[in-house]
Amino acid sequence: MKFYRPIVILVTVAMFMLTSCESSTNSPEKGIITHTVFFKLKHPKGSEAEKEFLAQAVALKSINTVMNMTQVTEIGQKNDFDLGLTMQFKNQADYDTYSNHPDHVEFVKNVWDKEVVDFMEIDYIVE
Amino acid sequence: MKFYRPIVILVTVAMFMLTSCESSTNSPEKGIITHTVFFKLKHPKGSEAEKEFLAQAVALKSINTVMNMTQVTEIGQKNDFDLGLTMQFKNQADYDTYSNHPDHVEFVKNVWDKEVVDFMEIDYIVE
Repeated sequence: MKFYRPIVILVTVAMFMLTSCESSTNSPEKGIITHTVFFKLKHPKGSEAEKEFLAQAVALKSINTVMNMTQVTEIGQKNDFDLGLTMQFKNQADYDTYSNHPDHVEFVKNVWDKEVVDFMEIDYIVE
Repeated sequence: MKFYRPIVILVTVAMFMLTSCESSTNSPEKGIITHTVFFKLKHPKGSEAEKEFLAQAVALKSINTVMNMTQVTEIGQKNDFDLGLTMQFKNQADYDTYSNHPDHVEFVKNVWDKEVVDFMEIDYIVE
């Protein structure tokens, strides 16, 4: 029997991993808030100023309630936005922690408000 | 040695599953197109007409290039949209297959254009 003990352990690990996989799909989980913002910068596309802006925006993922911060590029022809950021929060309290965090407040005041020409925020949940 | 052969197989399976997990996070994969549309219906919220509309919209997931079709509820206060649909396509050809599919064309003409008051489409990729 002792030869099969490692197998039992591995099957248990494999089953656990399969369960984890199922809960981590590209569709957001129920109740998770997906926060998206799409925007147009005053900087030329591909410029150093654009890269610096994006680096500062993405750095906000260090706020510990932010999940899955992702920088995206808008590719459709049906709006005027060029870039986007998507992130997720477990609940509204975690979202509020991000919104009110000094790093976020400072970024909005000193970077966002000065460099973003137009934007739209869309937040959604799966019910 | 023969006792360890099943272990080798299981380790291989576990490694494969771990790899699959890593490529299936809540952040979209590089190059995958995420198509999102947010909208306001002429129907009252929670009405049977709204439910019927959503059922017909979500039924478009039967078009075989559509991945991860998800109906979402807009919860932010910063735009006028109430509902949304998110889905993904492997590439532009798959997206075009969806756009040009008779079921989609018919839905847009006979349902969407008659029942949607306002909408915005945002499509993005992770580069």
